[in-house]
Amino acid sequence: MKKRIAILPGDGIGPEVCESATKVLNEIGRLYNHEFDFVYGDLGGVAIDKTGSPLPEETLSICKSSDAVLLGAVGGPKWDTLPGHQRPEQGLLGLRKQLELFANLRPVTIYDSLAEASPLKDEIIEGVDLLIVRELTGGIYFGEPRERRGEGEQETAVDTLVYSRQEVERIVRKGFEFAQERRGHLTSVDKANVLESSRLWREIVDEVAKDYPEVTYSHMLVDNAAMQLIRNPRQFDVVVTENMFGDILSDEASMITGSLGMLPSASMSANGPGLFEPIHGSAPDIAGKGIANPLATLSSLTMMLTFAFKLPNEAQALQEAINTVLEKGYRTADLTKDATDALSTNEMTQRVIEAL
Amino acid sequence: MKKRIAILPGDGIGPEVCESATKVLNEIGRLYNHEFDFVYGDLGGVAIDKTGSPLPEETLSICKSSDAVLLGAVGGPKWDTLPGHQRPEQGLLGLRKQLELFANLRPVTIYDSLAEASPLKDEIIEGVDLLIVRELTGGIYFGEPRERRGEGEQETAVDTLVYSRQEVERIVRKGFEFAQERRGHLTSVDKANVLESSRLWREIVDEVAKDYPEVTYSHMLVDNAAMQLIRNPRQFDVVVTENMFGDILSDEASMITGSLGMLPSASMSANGPGLFEPIHGSAPDIAGKGIANPLATLSSLTMMLTFAFKLPNEAQALQEAINTVLEKGYRTADLTKDATDALSTNEMTQRVIEAL
Ligand SMILES: CC(C)[C@H](C(=O)O)[C@@H](O)C(=O)O
Ligand SMILES: CC(C)[C@H](C(=O)O)[C@@H](O)C(=O)O
Repeated sequence: MKKRIAILPGDGIGPEVCESATKVLNEIGRLYNHEFDFVYGDLGGVAIDKTGSPLPEETLSICKSSDAVLLGAVGGPKWDTLPGHQRPEQGLLGLRKQLELFANLRPVTIYDSLAEASPLKDEIIEGVDLLIVRELTGGIYFGEPRERRGEGEQETAVDTLVYSRQEVERIVRKGFEFAQERRGHLTSVDKANVLESSRLWREIVDEVAKDYPEVTYSHMLVDNAAMQLIRNPRQFDVVVTENMFGDILSDEASMITGSLGMLPSASMSANGPGLFEPIHGSAPDIAGKGIANPLATLSSLTMMLTFAFKLPNEAQALQEAINTVLEKGYRTADLTKDATDALSTNEMTQRVIEAL
Repeated sequence: MKKRIAILPGDGIGPEVCESATKVLNEIGRLYNHEFDFVYGDLGGVAIDKTGSPLPEETLSICKSSDAVLLGAVGGPKWDTLPGHQRPEQGLLGLRKQLELFANLRPVTIYDSLAEASPLKDEIIEGVDLLIVRELTGGIYFGEPRERRGEGEQETAVDTLVYSRQEVERIVRKGFEFAQERRGHLTSVDKANVLESSRLWREIVDEVAKDYPEVTYSHMLVDNAAMQLIRNPRQFDVVVTENMFGDILSDEASMITGSLGMLPSASMSANGPGLFEPIHGSAPDIAGKGIANPLATLSSLTMMLTFAFKLPNEAQALQEAINTVLEKGYRTADLTKDATDALSTNEMTQRVIEAL
């Protein structure tokens, strides 16, 4: 199989973890007889520095003509004082919108060998295995009007949370589909006791549910969900929710593992290329030192192999390789208290390649 | 001192915990020579049943003519299928708006004797003592338009997040004032990388900060805040945020104690009476059994004594009484695994009265 992958290293540790990913992809290509071609594009701060725009046209066209996109990370203090629309994050938001990446998938699983890093007690996190399906191209992130009005004490700022039936339905269907393939339970999170958009959301969930009779589902208010994720995360299989709630809850959920450096994500469209990225940020404090943990990015590759290329065997082999190196006790600096033992990004990548 | 207190027992266990509160207030009145007069009003489901409205006019006027309001809890399955504007919660939202209760205060502290109930590890929660200051009468809870538009696939639902400079400023000032009285640090939570309203919020925080040079402050994005609350809650002193973020984060924060039945809240206006209520819900499953934990409601009384009546000594005496009964090992059913030892609501109330 021959695939073209757009690589957007971005800022901070992004280039380092992307380099790790390309090495591992090359090895998988060699072992399983695939050809992965890489094309590079700029996104975020690095793109601002080079072109003035966080999402240059060229990057967009590279992505559109690829089979999948791998993103490192965007952002950093250097660009924090720029006006809103010129910030690195705008590149990411623009890319999501342009590629119509409406479904953001964030699996949260616990590696037994890393469970002690969790701030939660062992008995709470044991066996946690949930998937957050977040709507990514609608809601308050993109609704209009979004503006300032009036002056002085009377000045107001306005954002608009808007969802169409069609936008809700397609993400809710994703939620049910994943639930069906997994343990058969879906939790739809909303704030239907306050928001009109949540009441529409809830209606549509009840309608779509009829097409998935094997899936049990329930509605949960977002404030309660924020509690339940800590109180008893094992109760969740698939969680489906709108953009902003998904932003908050998925970060909260990722922290229950204690190992942000481990968690992958995928953002999917209906037909076009998907985008795969680690959920950690650009970590400017350790950028360029060669010590970043590449495992979240490699784990994102397992999602790319599964969802974009339909190569479940290769995906499984890579996931097993990651498990193996962890079980053998290999750790990057973020995963260990004993820094003298810590592997570099390169060394960790080599261990994974060996385990493949 | 003579004070008039509006008591709104509400639904579920609300009446039981309010009865506990009036007994304790009577005892404090006796011991410290104050006269507390109680006037009762209906709110929520019980008000719907009696009058058809979740917030009858009479309740509102009882509250307005009182020095403080004590609320039990509202809501329950019986009213869950009513149309949105007739739901029990609407009574609470209406009351907040009518009494202009713009500042919701939710302290999160750990009782050492109950720390084991937390889903978080001991070393994470030890010494946690934070206060969430949530804006309560603005933002997406009340913004217009909030409506359905169009039909069929094209149907959309819209909510509006709007804040005026004046609304943001008064709550941010509250945040700084509390920080000044406490450990001198304020965390302002927003989503300034996405929301226009958050950018206004951030501007105003930076301006108001100049009036509180002794307070150190920082901005934190809401997704990061959702992580940091679990990763290291001790880093927080006062957290100030807008209505919806406050709803989510304060529930998350309350769960880190593991003892929802313990946590109080206060909602304050500029001049009128404040509203004091436990943060737990109406717990319909145990309503009427006489086993509800009254301590969150009694703890809310300490906030009433402090903020509404300026009686810090009485407040402290009550808080110490609560601490004492817990240290002596007295537990209601929600706080113990050994149900045979559990005290009833009445028994727990008596223990607190004795400790006073
Ligand atoms: C960078 C930011 C705009 C983004 C978001 O809010 O969606 C991030 O938090 C995420 O979750 O990918
Ligand atoms: C009942 C509901 C409307 C309310 C809110 O969202 O404010 C509740 O969750 C709270 O936090 O007091």
